[in-house]
Amino acid sequence: MNAATTATEIPALMDSLGRAATQAARALAQATSAQKRAALEAAAQAIRAHADAILEANRLDIEQAKQRELSGAMLDRLMLNEARVEGMARGVEEVAALDDPVGVVAAEWTRPNGLLIQRVRVPLGVVGIIYESRPNVTADAGALCLKSGNAVILRGGSESAHSSRAIHERLVQGLRAAELPEAAIQIVPTTDRAAVGYMLASMTQYIDVVVPRGGRSLVERVQKEARVPVIGHLEGNCHVYVDRAADVHMAQQIVLNAKLRRTGICGAAETVLLNRASAAAPVVIKALLDSGCEVRGDEEVQRFDPRVKPAREEDWRTEYLDSIIAARVVGDVEEAIEHIAAYGSAHTESIVTNDAQAAERFLTRVDSAIVLHNASTQFADGGEFGMGAEIGISTDKFHARGPVGVEQLTSYKYVVRGQGQVRP
Amino acid sequence: MNAATTATEIPALMDSLGRAATQAARALAQATSAQKRAALEAAAQAIRAHADAILEANRLDIEQAKQRELSGAMLDRLMLNEARVEGMARGVEEVAALDDPVGVVAAEWTRPNGLLIQRVRVPLGVVGIIYESRPNVTADAGALCLKSGNAVILRGGSESAHSSRAIHERLVQGLRAAELPEAAIQIVPTTDRAAVGYMLASMTQYIDVVVPRGGRSLVERVQKEARVPVIGHLEGNCHVYVDRAADVHMAQQIVLNAKLRRTGICGAAETVLLNRASAAAPVVIKALLDSGCEVRGDEEVQRFDPRVKPAREEDWRTEYLDSIIAARVVGDVEEAIEHIAAYGSAHTESIVTNDAQAAERFLTRVDSAIVLHNASTQFADGGEFGMGAEIGISTDKFHARGPVGVEQLTSYKYVVRGQGQVRP
Repeated sequence: MNAATTATEIPALMDSLGRAATQAARALAQATSAQKRAALEAAAQAIRAHADAILEANRLDIEQAKQRELSGAMLDRLMLNEARVEGMARGVEEVAALDDPVGVVAAEWTRPNGLLIQRVRVPLGVVGIIYESRPNVTADAGALCLKSGNAVILRGGSESAHSSRAIHERLVQGLRAAELPEAAIQIVPTTDRAAVGYMLASMTQYIDVVVPRGGRSLVERVQKEARVPVIGHLEGNCHVYVDRAADVHMAQQIVLNAKLRRTGICGAAETVLLNRASAAAPVVIKALLDSGCEVRGDEEVQRFDPRVKPAREEDWRTEYLDSIIAARVVGDVEEAIEHIAAYGSAHTESIVTNDAQAAERFLTRVDSAIVLHNASTQFADGGEFGMGAEIGISTDKFHARGPVGVEQLTSYKYVVRGQGQVRP
Repeated sequence: MNAATTATEIPALMDSLGRAATQAARALAQATSAQKRAALEAAAQAIRAHADAILEANRLDIEQAKQRELSGAMLDRLMLNEARVEGMARGVEEVAALDDPVGVVAAEWTRPNGLLIQRVRVPLGVVGIIYESRPNVTADAGALCLKSGNAVILRGGSESAHSSRAIHERLVQGLRAAELPEAAIQIVPTTDRAAVGYMLASMTQYIDVVVPRGGRSLVERVQKEARVPVIGHLEGNCHVYVDRAADVHMAQQIVLNAKLRRTGICGAAETVLLNRASAAAPVVIKALLDSGCEVRGDEEVQRFDPRVKPAREEDWRTEYLDSIIAARVVGDVEEAIEHIAAYGSAHTESIVTNDAQAAERFLTRVDSAIVLHNASTQFADGGEFGMGAEIGISTDKFHARGPVGVEQLTSYKYVVRGQGQVRP
């Protein structure tokens, strides 16, 4: 953070991080499950033991943020308190307790010639994480990468530089305690934005995958500039479709939960599609309005309630992340599927219906990472899926789709055992 | 092929291919297994029925190639005859007979709240295949993409343009017979090289993954220019390590097979590493020389036989694809692992030993797509793995590693079935 770097120093600095990470990755790939668990448990203890130092570092970040007049939302993301530090420590412990994905035999078969073929999970190698103001990403991402046997190069936002560095120190304490290489978890020691550009474009020989964690502009920058593979999560423009055969009470419960339980997460619903013939349609709209949600509807939705505001074309594309929902009336499940194909972001969509055929059609034909029947879109979460902590929800189809947990941070190799077989 | 295109026409042409492919992909994702099988069987029949037309087109390519004075190896790759056309038809039938990977539930579990979560295989979407002179890639790649539910845009080399177009016509006949959209398998109708650049850099909204099939320079160009994900296969600098505890006869059989069965395939061994204490070391070298293989060895290997030529540093990095092998003496399995880490291409490596511990160390620590114990590296092949036809062997760790068959051309989605669950 304090290292004075110039543009010409960035390549040398980053290459040295890359070389150290590559070396650490080779050692980490061979680390035992017990070692990795011990490192994470020790890191969690260190975070707790040094909560004061972390909070002190965070106060410096907050002061600077106030001087730079950052928004209240930004300050909230940046701010740590005792509860949040404790939550961070507990998060690291939860990752520690997960099953080790490395070395797992994911498939195994014997060929007629006697060759035993096993597909075995191995780490990807070196992961680059590029994130913004949330300092807890340092702990989360560091822990997930270590658990999956990957070395990681963390590049946090300049706003949270002090906090991230303080947290990173505790992770390194954990590595040391378990006799794992300290370079397994590195943090880029400069806030120079050129470091990000160099990571994305010039470190292909060191970095196996980059994961951006942050808003749309960050993810788009990463996808635009990256010469390394990216696990990206653009946005969650999620839909709930209330079918003709929906149970009215269930539809109301699911739409309210999908939109309002937490409005700021990527699995929050942003558009509700209502079947013209469903008795639930007006009920759902009124319930949303009564709960304080702004509804922007098409002409038919506007007729349900005078409080509905008119929706414009852009509303169908918007991820509000707020108490606002777009609402449209459709004729049937086909029309709902077409709307989602045209405007959705292929993240998470739900159908509410008691018609099994309509449900199957929706689940099969909607091409999103997660499709649900009679359940809230807010279940789009690695923890809720039983996968443990996650680094985000991928809307890509390549490599990882949906929640990205420790398993999605691995690759595999084929191990073949013979008794002298040669190929005829 | 004959379409006169100018640089300004390429974007419009390629965008129209992209749009058609995207539309076809949506239809294909819903195609039944029976439909896809019927299309491929009809295509195989059409290839057989029109063998003459295909051979006639091929003669045009061969004539042009001779005028352009292409090498004998190039002419051989380009040349079709009745047997090769029949082989192509049979290849398409073999793909037709594979299990459909789409719709397969790869994993399934129920959460404590009653949600049933299924991970279901889905197509990637649109695949771009960029290849060189082998016209049979048109049939192979077209068939594999169709089987996996992907639309494909094929871009073959200019040398094989007539042949590829003639083969492509038969694939389209198959699609028509099964009432699948013709745009499911398209071929770029121009040999303008700018079309490749446009595919790689400007079709991210249409193409989900590009697979280059060809020599190193093609793959490197694709990896350098691509803004879309790539399943790449750089080269197979494969190793056999003959351990101290190797059976002499087995070592000889495996090394000869790994090097000489076919020298031109990516799983052919290019370097043999010999344990100093192994009785097999001199035997293996003499057997290679006696079989007509050139051996380029370090000083110790040179002492085994006067016919051994001195190896230079670059020999450790070379994929000969010929009857030449590099040979080096090492002290132990660790030294072999280090050599492979330094010079290998992470494709396929084999250890020959009766020492189970040495074998485990090698299998665990060598970070290659395929690692074998007491078996020939020439088993590096999707067919030999029981995966059916393949589009190549990926040396990437991201998405697909090792043989790339129909399963590796898929992604997945999560299908979640509830009874009204909302998230607390």
